[in-house]
Amino acid sequence: MQLFKKNSNKIKVMALGGLNEIGKNMTVIEYKDEIIVIDAGLSFPEDEMLGIDIVIPDVTYLVKNKDKIKGIFITHGHEDHIGALPYILKKINVPVYGAKLSIGLIQVKLKEHKLNNVKLNVIKPREVVKLSNMEVEFIKVNHSIPDACSIAVHTDQGIIYHTGDFKVDLTPIDGDVMDIHRICELSKKGVLLMLADSTNAERPGSTMSERTVGNGLDDLFRKAINNRILVATFASNIHRLQQIINTAEKFNRKVAVSGRSMVNVVGVASDLGYLNIPENMMIDLNDIYKYEENEIVLITTGSQGEPMSALARMASAEHKKVEIKNGDLIIISANAIPGNEKSISKVVNSLLEKGAEVVYEDEDIHVSGHAKQEELKLIHRLVRPKFFMPAHGEYRMLKKHAELAEELGMPSQNIFVNKTGEVLELDRNSAKVSGTVPTGNVLVDGLGVGDVGNIVLRDRKHLSEDGLMIVVVTISKEDGRVLAGPDIISRGFVYVRESEDLMDGAKNIIKNVLIECEQKNIKEWAYLKNNIKENLKEYLYQKTKRNPMILPIIMEV
Amino acid sequence: MQLFKKNSNKIKVMALGGLNEIGKNMTVIEYKDEIIVIDAGLSFPEDEMLGIDIVIPDVTYLVKNKDKIKGIFITHGHEDHIGALPYILKKINVPVYGAKLSIGLIQVKLKEHKLNNVKLNVIKPREVVKLSNMEVEFIKVNHSIPDACSIAVHTDQGIIYHTGDFKVDLTPIDGDVMDIHRICELSKKGVLLMLADSTNAERPGSTMSERTVGNGLDDLFRKAINNRILVATFASNIHRLQQIINTAEKFNRKVAVSGRSMVNVVGVASDLGYLNIPENMMIDLNDIYKYEENEIVLITTGSQGEPMSALARMASAEHKKVEIKNGDLIIISANAIPGNEKSISKVVNSLLEKGAEVVYEDEDIHVSGHAKQEELKLIHRLVRPKFFMPAHGEYRMLKKHAELAEELGMPSQNIFVNKTGEVLELDRNSAKVSGTVPTGNVLVDGLGVGDVGNIVLRDRKHLSEDGLMIVVVTISKEDGRVLAGPDIISRGFVYVRESEDLMDGAKNIIKNVLIECEQKNIKEWAYLKNNIKENLKEYLYQKTKRNPMILPIIMEV
Repeated sequence: MQLFKKNSNKIKVMALGGLNEIGKNMTVIEYKDEIIVIDAGLSFPEDEMLGIDIVIPDVTYLVKNKDKIKGIFITHGHEDHIGALPYILKKINVPVYGAKLSIGLIQVKLKEHKLNNVKLNVIKPREVVKLSNMEVEFIKVNHSIPDACSIAVHTDQGIIYHTGDFKVDLTPIDGDVMDIHRICELSKKGVLLMLADSTNAERPGSTMSERTVGNGLDDLFRKAINNRILVATFASNIHRLQQIINTAEKFNRKVAVSGRSMVNVVGVASDLGYLNIPENMMIDLNDIYKYEENEIVLITTGSQGEPMSALARMASAEHKKVEIKNGDLIIISANAIPGNEKSISKVVNSLLEKGAEVVYEDEDIHVSGHAKQEELKLIHRLVRPKFFMPAHGEYRMLKKHAELAEELGMPSQNIFVNKTGEVLELDRNSAKVSGTVPTGNVLVDGLGVGDVGNIVLRDRKHLSEDGLMIVVVTISKEDGRVLAGPDIISRGFVYVRESEDLMDGAKNIIKNVLIECEQKNIKEWAYLKNNIKENLKEYLYQKTKRNPMILPIIMEV
Repeated sequence: MQLFKKNSNKIKVMALGGLNEIGKNMTVIEYKDEIIVIDAGLSFPEDEMLGIDIVIPDVTYLVKNKDKIKGIFITHGHEDHIGALPYILKKINVPVYGAKLSIGLIQVKLKEHKLNNVKLNVIKPREVVKLSNMEVEFIKVNHSIPDACSIAVHTDQGIIYHTGDFKVDLTPIDGDVMDIHRICELSKKGVLLMLADSTNAERPGSTMSERTVGNGLDDLFRKAINNRILVATFASNIHRLQQIINTAEKFNRKVAVSGRSMVNVVGVASDLGYLNIPENMMIDLNDIYKYEENEIVLITTGSQGEPMSALARMASAEHKKVEIKNGDLIIISANAIPGNEKSISKVVNSLLEKGAEVVYEDEDIHVSGHAKQEELKLIHRLVRPKFFMPAHGEYRMLKKHAELAEELGMPSQNIFVNKTGEVLELDRNSAKVSGTVPTGNVLVDGLGVGDVGNIVLRDRKHLSEDGLMIVVVTISKEDGRVLAGPDIISRGFVYVRESEDLMDGAKNIIKNVLIECEQKNIKEWAYLKNNIKENLKEYLYQKTKRNPMILPIIMEV
């Protein structure tokens, strides 16, 4: 793991997550005897990760070098940037730095995990955290959550600038435009390396301003003047929530909030002053039926069709407090995150069947939080880095971003489309990939962190596809006689009551194996088990074309 | 099930699949003592249908009325219209009618199922199958497969016109435009009811002509003049295959084919004269390395990222005959079917990482096979039906199509947004939903048709999320003493070698239950099992926040 000689003037930059994937963002910068970490995000399990709740980065490298780590610096409060924090802080308790809202959201999270001993530091934009060899500066950007920051790491070799997730919104809801002027100053000083958000690198043009959504909402509210209105969006998109509240105010509607994360975020955001809610506007979800339908707006979670979300429960008539009615206007103010298309569609269909009008997949009511190609070109032109490493995205996005940088005139040898774990080693003159550190997915399932590995997942997959068949038999220690069984128990394989012939056939197969073994006086249970397994497997496949997991159990008495 | 009095002048129209879903298309028309069936399609399993291969319609109604059924009339040879045929013909062996290519593709399918005794009838467009009370006429439409037909059922109450899947392609590849003139004649005679494809009812405008794809392919081939080219598309899209062949011819390239279904379809289609392949153009996949890279085109399956498809195997370097190389141009000439976005993205990323150029999600190289709003308006204007029932689509599509019909001036009471199984009863004057017949999903898993029900699926889901723990103990019949065990076997739960404490704890829980039962002289095994289950469940959840399936097994000796 000792990749460099001590006191080298090389800076090491590596991602422990976020490259060739969406989510799990984490970048490590190491210089001399100091390490800083930018973000600690989670990702959501892939389809094949059965039963897994969330995925976090493998931080073996950080644990081994924990004495060097000076802090974790958070760009913004989205789950793919803060979601792994509780798990990682349990292994390496280091100070956390972030803007006010980010720290507010982290506090909620740490409380849930009963972590009380973490040092949290609220940093303002342009504020600098000074270490021995690095100075870490937070610089305002725009994104789909307030208080999003990019991070500039000043070193004697030059500046490393990480955009974080960003877009260029020249008319943001809170009036706080990305700090273009400070970025120009950095550029003047000399940016050695830029890491930049690649999420929308494949999309031409510019992302629309969040403000445009306000007009879209106004238009819809105007048309539904006599109806109840529900708006589903991401809880963390506080600018969006503000716009819903603004539109509700224009149309004299009260606002109620549904869904645990929505209630949480509205609480934190209004406590910290990020949501401006007129007095007497918020009502309790229990009180919505005290008002006329056209006097209320309901803000809810579930814009991704998540099966347990408030909106999905309303759609399936399982929500305890809200019943969807004919004429309700439901606005899904979000785009589908890839993989969620079908669950959203299912919710939309159910809502429509209940007679609601549903507005979805509509550009007027949702904009992205990530820079498209023209904005990426702008950040490249502004920052003018010597070296460039596309960040945050699947390979196709990183590659497109690299091509974009080349089009802007950057020499291809100065661009590094790295993998997670690859270490970029650089100084003021040169940069190259010098090695790798361990990385990967750590799967979180319930309280277990990393205890579900490939074997467990393979078994879950096998069980999920064809179920299992258990064969139990009790055998005499003395003479190998069968004392009880064979009994067969199956689950997830076939409906047993309608498969009696199949089960009888299976029992016969087992009996024959047992008789043969008894006759041959075979008492090696491993051999016997294997024999049962092989014969049964063949029989079941031939009869059903299925391969259940077969578990022979032999009890000796 | 007897919904009508005998010799009623009412026609019954019902879908046994295809409404509020994509796939599984099947429509039943019943008049007097005759039944005809239009299409017999499959659908692909939903995410929660673990281990299921395909889904077919419940045809209980047809089986009960099999003496009345005069035939199954096939609109075209796509899986969602013919895929359930072998299963249904095993239950009701009736004649099948379809255009030449449809019958050709059905033959391949029946052969695989070893069904030799089915009467297959090739019907030409404008040809009519005469029954006692109905005449069934095939009418040419355009779609993403040749020989697609709509079906007009002539009765003394008026015509029932089913568009099948269609688009209006005024410059189709085979020159055969949709038979607009015949449709106008039908309209003049009087169409009582139209059923029409709703797949693209939410999309404004018109679907582009298939021919436009040819230009897109030409452009790409021109740019990749020195490179190997691979094109992935749907095997059944024979017009697309023809265009790839045409472009290959222009650029003097040989063509090889990869993927089982692609090889099958190319065989059938060229045998039947639907593919025009220049002599000496086709080469064997084994011979591609005998040619220069810019002398070949490879046509492959896998445009949906299917994990076992040829393209996916090439992407993961598991294909035996084709290795993706730096500079290869890979054209994915297809759109993502909802739900497949992530698997396609995975394949694209892997191909790009191997240095290939990948063209995907590009309007120049794929067009839809289904009519968009302007084409739907045209078909409504042409057919001018008295009643209308949107067909083929999720609820949101059906509803949009109904709204479209209303915009065109149809009274809303003449429009029926029905569910599968709902029976529309109509005569020349009136129409109403009069009842329902049984419908639903029949799940096919291996050789089992319908033997996997909710209990089996629920168990598979449970097993897939948290695995299982088996507890076995052998107990004396006489005195309830434990003779062997308790033994614990777990799969898909935790990695046992790293969870010894947990397993020891579990064993103690079981031992305590056994001791307690022995002391209390309890010999009801059901009670004992339940006690083990409850105590273990609580213990495991508290320790792991997981709920494995717990299976206590007691052997009596």
